[in-house]
Amino acid sequence: MTETRLTPAEAQALAEATAEAMYARDRAAHALGIQIVRVQPGASLLTMKVRPDMVNGHHICHGGMIFSLADTAFAYACNAYNKNTVASACHIDFLAPGKEGEMLEAEAVERSAAGRTGVYDITVRGEKGQTIALFRGKSYRIAGEVIAGLQQADQAA
Amino acid sequence: MTETRLTPAEAQALAEATAEAMYARDRAAHALGIQIVRVQPGASLLTMKVRPDMVNGHHICHGGMIFSLADTAFAYACNAYNKNTVASACHIDFLAPGKEGEMLEAEAVERSAAGRTGVYDITVRGEKGQTIALFRGKSYRIAGEVIAGLQQADQAA
Amino acid sequence: MTETRLTPAEAQALAEATAEAMYARDRAAHALGIQIVRVQPGASLLTMKVRPDMVNGHHICHGGMIFSLADTAFAYACNAYNKNTVASACHIDFLAPGKEGEMLEAEAVERSAAGRTGVYDITVRGEKGQTIALFRGKSYRIAGEVIAGLQQADQAA
Amino acid sequence: MTETRLTPAEAQALAEATAEAMYARDRAAHALGIQIVRVQPGASLLTMKVRPDMVNGHHICHGGMIFSLADTAFAYACNAYNKNTVASACHIDFLAPGKEGEMLEAEAVERSAAGRTGVYDITVRGEKGQTIALFRGKSYRIAGEVIAGLQQADQAA
Repeated sequence: MTETRLTPAEAQALAEATAEAMYARDRAAHALGIQIVRVQPGASLLTMKVRPDMVNGHHICHGGMIFSLADTAFAYACNAYNKNTVASACHIDFLAPGKEGEMLEAEAVERSAAGRTGVYDITVRGEKGQTIALFRGKSYRIAGEVIAGLQQADQAA
Repeated sequence: MTETRLTPAEAQALAEATAEAMYARDRAAHALGIQIVRVQPGASLLTMKVRPDMVNGHHICHGGMIFSLADTAFAYACNAYNKNTVASACHIDFLAPGKEGEMLEAEAVERSAAGRTGVYDITVRGEKGQTIALFRGKSYRIAGEVIAGLQQADQAA
Repeated sequence: MTETRLTPAEAQALAEATAEAMYARDRAAHALGIQIVRVQPGASLLTMKVRPDMVNGHHICHGGMIFSLADTAFAYACNAYNKNTVASACHIDFLAPGKEGEMLEAEAVERSAAGRTGVYDITVRGEKGQTIALFRGKSYRIAGEVIAGLQQADQAA
Repeated sequence: MTETRLTPAEAQALAEATAEAMYARDRAAHALGIQIVRVQPGASLLTMKVRPDMVNGHHICHGGMIFSLADTAFAYACNAYNKNTVASACHIDFLAPGKEGEMLEAEAVERSAAGRTGVYDITVRGEKGQTIALFRGKSYRIAGEVIAGLQQADQAA
């Protein structure tokens, strides 16, 4: 899903502008305390600290919160081309628990992109670098752009 | 994973007591506004309203929040036997968006249970009964009980 | 994905005609000794005997053969509307081994169908009714019909 | 799941010996015409040619055959430590069709290994290097060794 008419520097600038625009209106990411460390075309690195209200009845980080972090990294990676893209399916393997107070990171990479469909792998790690979860998401590009009109404006320029 | 020495009424009472104990310490479920409508041995029905802070950068319910609701229904279903049980893997297909303000429900049923492993299907529906997501979770029973000592006390009585 | 202009009897006849046409050219199903017990709109029941050449290096039925049976049941269920439909993703949980000489059955049911996309659940059982595997498949409708021209002919009639 | 008491050369020799022993009794792999190109600890590369009897009713390689190739690569990768290991769950995304006569390859790599459980990623590619399918498998180590008694003999020596 490379933007063939963009240079690498332009593609990187587009990924960053898109992430900034998405993040400004992404209330769920803000509510979870998710921070964006970096985005690139098809890739992202995000962090989230396990707060007391993210712990479940077994005293470990709720699987839904780990999923949410991974799913958010997935979203920033697959939307980095400024084409509106949503998750159609996700699979997650939980390998180790996340602990209260632990800073988790989620790194997303693109494994495949063809037509409207992409596959992304997201690895969630704990503070010691241990793998907390492996997530694979399938994306589907819908109509519209994250920053509406940006690409058209570029082409007209 | 039936508790063979329990009558149906006892198994139901155990499922309800277990859910109550779990919910009391499940800060994540409270933070998400998740309500328990009913639990049964291996089954549950929960609700969650899509709040403004659950909406993502595409103006629809964050997939992580839909996953969290389904995952919570899964947890209450697979822990209903009062044996500590955690998710080892989950798969979710997103079929329709959830909207801000919409009341979602998640219904969990047991598909298989053998040894320490179980498979549960969770259906997330919207206010009009439309299927929002289909979730399948694999559970793994770990050491300990949700209500510690309850079963032993019963057996000693 | 109901064919609204068909009566239940017509839909059933279409499902059977479609399955017959598919099976006639489905060399893989023949090579595996897969038999069709019944098809219905969105549903199917197939059998396969575990032959000596379907056993792996652990002396149990190769997971790929169990998957193939489930995937074939999935194909006959989702193509029963006579619209060419392919698998886009599948997930399988292996719960018990299949043994050499054992007759396996796979039952497919439709869980969701909207637009071009469907979700089907396939249960693979052994001779004693035990669950061998749970399979969930996502289908995607492509151009064309299984029996080319059939529906158009019907509409012209 | 590194064998800490083995040198890299010993681990590689063990992987090759294990693969040879598995392949000798793997009738399913032989029946499918699967060839082993290489194995390493936790990794493998296999090939399979799409034969006429592997084609389904849509004239493309049966998904079950693609899955079988990937699943076999998974098996040779996760058994390369000479500990009997089976698949507990697999997920596959089908991205492009395989064609009759095409030589497919499946490359397996280990993503995680802890305790009895491992996660492996298998990529199936076609003749032009295009990605045909992405497969993720979860493994579970059971009792026994692929080459029974080998490790004990080594330790006694």
